Amino acid sequence: MSYSSTVQELIDQLGKLPGIGPKSAQRIAFYLLKSPSEEAIRLAKAISEAKSRVSYCPRCFNFSEYGRECEICRDPKRDHRFVCVVEDAQDVEAIERTRQFSGRYHVMQGAFSPIDGVGVDQLRFKELLGRLNVESVEEIIIATNPNLEGEATAALIHKYLQPLDIRVTRIASGLPVGGDLEYADELTLGRAFEGRREVVEE
Amino acid sequence: MSYSSTVQELIDQLGKLPGIGPKSAQRIAFYLLKSPSEEAIRLAKAISEAKSRVSYCPRCFNFSEYGRECEICRDPKRDHRFVCVVEDAQDVEAIERTRQFSGRYHVMQGAFSPIDGVGVDQLRFKELLGRLNVESVEEIIIATNPNLEGEATAALIHKYLQPLDIRVTRIASGLPVGGDLEYADELTLGRAFEGRREVVEE
Repeated sequence: MSYSSTVQELIDQLGKLPGIGPKSAQRIAFYLLKSPSEEAIRLAKAISEAKSRVSYCPRCFNFSEYGRECEICRDPKRDHRFVCVVEDAQDVEAIERTRQFSGRYHVMQGAFSPIDGVGVDQLRFKELLGRLNVESVEEIIIATNPNLEGEATAALIHKYLQPLDIRVTRIASGLPVGGDLEYADELTLGRAFEGRREVVEE
Repeated sequence: MSYSSTVQELIDQLGKLPGIGPKSAQRIAFYLLKSPSEEAIRLAKAISEAKSRVSYCPRCFNFSEYGRECEICRDPKRDHRFVCVVEDAQDVEAIERTRQFSGRYHVMQGAFSPIDGVGVDQLRFKELLGRLNVESVEEIIIATNPNLEGEATAALIHKYLQPLDIRVTRIASGLPVGGDLEYADELTLGRAFEGRREVVEE
């Protein structure tokens, strides 16, 4: 291997990104080396600024900047009576794109999967219950992924919320089972929102 | 769109990279936001250091650091009588991996393609002729890509070098090793026929 250590380090770091194999990493590295300095520096700056500025919203655990509440939680036009529970921040984006939901969110930051070391304590259950004690929420819409972990998370949320007098709904599985909410198209996701139903005892 | 401007800037910058679509850019951005700070910062640093340190070798126009000659040109063990002409720095890597060539390189930094605005002046022709005046080169091995632009570049190099008393060769085109004759395209198979060689006892 005749790459200089600087080039090799760049290829190695790019290769750690999800979906970037060794060939893509090399291709991107050479692209960056050939591109105008400003462009590459702008990318480097975007990464470091995102890391220094972006943290989690103290209310809903979506991404937010400077430790403040996120833009959705701060928006007075959002309907505080509805809280949509999702696994990840990407899912907030996906739902926002449908323009079907005007309430607020709660990001669990994962899905229940003890085999992967993700139990109740790793998720934002406690914080969700804390919110329900102080916020006057009328409906919780569970929009976890329609796969094994997502369903388990949904079942747990339902169990935890049963003692409280709150309507709990689950978005309809218009989504293909086993799919990933992040990649659903707006129409399907919008339909799933429309078709949400009461969670009932099985 | 509810991304904060910092997150959006990160996604935009990532989306400019080759082979990275909007979905991948978003996925990588969220991955970086969730990953440990050191890892993301290390990537940002790798990019900016590569841009500040890496430039072109003044002899062969491969990438090199701190404006010095590249490692291959500086290596006293490389055979200076052989110069392999390639289009891009990636091609140097590909040939190095074969461990079949111990000479030096000349990177044209592109291929002749007037329709894309790449003429003789955009390539490193002048610098190649300059080298041949001062270096005692015995053979130029043309290893440009076996496509339209690469062949045009090869033909031009051959034309420019004809007045000089230097052997000019072209790497063979033919069936890839492990390939299937049945699935080879006509052009490749034609080349393989043209380039046929005596079967000799080994």
